[in-house]
Amino acid sequence: MTWIQRDITLKPRSRGVHLVTSEIVGALPELRDMRVGLAHLFIRHTSASLTLNENASPDVRRDFESWFNVAVPEDFAWTHTLEGPDDMPAHIKASLMGPSLSLPISGGRLALGTWQGVYLCEHRDHGGARSLLATLFGELASPA
Amino acid sequence: MTWIQRDITLKPRSRGVHLVTSEIVGALPELRDMRVGLAHLFIRHTSASLTLNENASPDVRRDFESWFNVAVPEDFAWTHTLEGPDDMPAHIKASLMGPSLSLPISGGRLALGTWQGVYLCEHRDHGGARSLLATLFGELASPA
Amino acid sequence: MTWIQRDITLKPRSRGVHLVTSEIVGALPELRDMRVGLAHLFIRHTSASLTLNENASPDVRRDFESWFNVAVPEDFAWTHTLEGPDDMPAHIKASLMGPSLSLPISGGRLALGTWQGVYLCEHRDHGGARSLLATLFGELASPA
Repeated sequence: MTWIQRDITLKPRSRGVHLVTSEIVGALPELRDMRVGLAHLFIRHTSASLTLNENASPDVRRDFESWFNVAVPEDFAWTHTLEGPDDMPAHIKASLMGPSLSLPISGGRLALGTWQGVYLCEHRDHGGARSLLATLFGELASPA
Repeated sequence: MTWIQRDITLKPRSRGVHLVTSEIVGALPELRDMRVGLAHLFIRHTSASLTLNENASPDVRRDFESWFNVAVPEDFAWTHTLEGPDDMPAHIKASLMGPSLSLPISGGRLALGTWQGVYLCEHRDHGGARSLLATLFGELASPA
Repeated sequence: MTWIQRDITLKPRSRGVHLVTSEIVGALPELRDMRVGLAHLFIRHTSASLTLNENASPDVRRDFESWFNVAVPEDFAWTHTLEGPDDMPAHIKASLMGPSLSLPISGGRLALGTWQGVYLCEHRDHGGARSLLATLFGELASPA
């Protein structure tokens, strides 16, 4: 049984939804040594989130952002407003998508479906760099 | 420490919410040998999802579908429309519910609450068969 | 590899969103012995949920409740109404937030971000006490 824990810093991105699968896989070279296990990706923020969705069309990611802004509008009877109009909606959106993904590992790779990719959802106008903690655990292909 | 990974194919179902607890448990006979652990259920698609909810009344599942269709309408300013009017809403709904469930195992069974059951949420009109990857990990009741 | 499973009962709370981080950490003294691992928190109900969000301002939690009540209104064409007007919205809200959290453990502590806290979302008017099953797994700081 092997445990690997690694901090990953995602560079600042514009408000919206971004495909970060290869950036994350690239930061986790140990993946390829694992026969079976799970990869737990955890974002250490309350105004950005992680989800899994369609990895091909940028239109899908734009439509996520459009829908978010209608479903959780800035123009609402918020009481928590002192951090700006984008702040409270960002908190709600972050909980709707969630702060973590648990992804199966099989044969040295994330066992994602053909069309699945990891989305970073940046819900703030100026969120800055985002800190992830990745925890991989499972069995090595050839135990040490 | 034992790891079991198993593909489960769920037969095609109509758009809507379906209770699949016994189908999934039936496909995982190794569950009953485990003293403690977790069952990770992962759907390898971006337009269907998994959630846990009330396992008794079919009305609850119908109301989920009604609510989904109002909260994420087909009639919206989507840009990603080339796969049909049900496609983009399906992607959003899939991320709202999420692609995976992590369920505790205790004494050879999923340690669900009395009223909890596994829902397959089929968000497409004609989604076809759906592929799940189940990963069980934990300790056997009597280690080999 | 160590597995700890523990039932936690959360006292009855009013409808709304409640910060329960210290109550949960206080019920899991074994956390401090773990070098690396995950804490899986699982609520065994279908009308209350767990999420992670801002741990400072009570306004944020009040705004969550306000938003929930607009996004999933009691006044809707529900068919499942025999358990009261708050019941069916509670089921939907519970699935939006989800029944579990998987939190990384690092150096004997939950590796949460500075602003992250565990929210119990009580979606019923009179939900009563809520039962959680916590599963900790990982490696001890000094293996026995």
